[in-house]
Amino acid sequence: MYSPLIDELIDALRCLPGVGPKSAQRMALQLLERDRKGAARLVQALNEAVEHVGRCQLCRTLTESEYCEICANPRRDNQQLCVVETPADLFAIEQSNTYRGRYFVLLGHLSPIDGIGPEAIGVDQLMNRLVEENVSELILATNLTVEGETTAHYISERARQLNVIVSRIAHGVPMGGELEYVDGGTLAHAFSSRKQL
Amino acid sequence: MYSPLIDELIDALRCLPGVGPKSAQRMALQLLERDRKGAARLVQALNEAVEHVGRCQLCRTLTESEYCEICANPRRDNQQLCVVETPADLFAIEQSNTYRGRYFVLLGHLSPIDGIGPEAIGVDQLMNRLVEENVSELILATNLTVEGETTAHYISERARQLNVIVSRIAHGVPMGGELEYVDGGTLAHAFSSRKQL
Ligand SMILES: [Zn+2]
Ligand SMILES: [Zn+2]
Repeated sequence: MYSPLIDELIDALRCLPGVGPKSAQRMALQLLERDRKGAARLVQALNEAVEHVGRCQLCRTLTESEYCEICANPRRDNQQLCVVETPADLFAIEQSNTYRGRYFVLLGHLSPIDGIGPEAIGVDQLMNRLVEENVSELILATNLTVEGETTAHYISERARQLNVIVSRIAHGVPMGGELEYVDGGTLAHAFSSRKQL
Repeated sequence: MYSPLIDELIDALRCLPGVGPKSAQRMALQLLERDRKGAARLVQALNEAVEHVGRCQLCRTLTESEYCEICANPRRDNQQLCVVETPADLFAIEQSNTYRGRYFVLLGHLSPIDGIGPEAIGVDQLMNRLVEENVSELILATNLTVEGETTAHYISERARQLNVIVSRIAHGVPMGGELEYVDGGTLAHAFSSRKQL
């Protein structure tokens, strides 16, 4: 209903999460009417990020370096390894300022119906780290959803065979809640009251 | 707090209207984790639109052609000319299926405090059209906000000197309301009950 190029821009903006037809329209018109500099900056940032951002070779979080800042930080505690589903969950835990160990990012969770098995979420890589780095505690901080619980259960079974202490964050995170939306205080509480599995 | 390239992408996404830090973060991670194709499509669409979309030579709406589809359509009525603030307002009126005349898009409204005077919103160009195209009715469909009313008042004074019938959309649009968010039925009503000024 606008011109073809504007219509295509509106459509393309809908790939962004939470953006429906009405907000996509507002975004496109705002960029074209008033903020072409912002549009150019966005193009540049998207290009750079898509071209250079890959996975950290150790923890699998998103980064443009071989190792992310946390993995590359020699002052982080090697004894604890915390498993999260996504980079946003890692970020949320870092924001809560309660944890000084290392991470492993699954970039997803087990979902047999979608064909996502242990390999897709890097469980073998995780098990290798437990052995090679001599980790003493594995903290499972997957979401408190059905999929997150299933994934935590599967990993705990695998890790127990390696004689590692396995714990699960527990109190404080609401049932069905996603870590990314939990405030720092709640997360800190969930960490300190974790239970050994 | 993420890697520099991801942080820059999150910042750049905040130029989009209605996007705060939290949604920008979700957008960046979603694109990088799961939808790099969508990101590439968005880059392409932004580049094309920013490079090619300009103003219609006649009505000033956004388009990549010399004349927009409405101006280029010989079956639109030349006798009526409708003034709106933005392309989104034009779109909203078209959606209401109640008007078959032509448009003039101010791309803004009078705002002395921001240095936006009659030239910036194309009032001279509008007056020329009234004379050259022999328009019989000028319909003022600026927003029913203070700025929109001021702008409508100014234009009606100027147009009256040219002996053109000037009308203002009225009933149905809530006070302080912005056209873009008004449903089609209400807009149709506002059109049919417009008052001559
Ligand atoms: Zn890492
Ligand atoms: Zn036009």
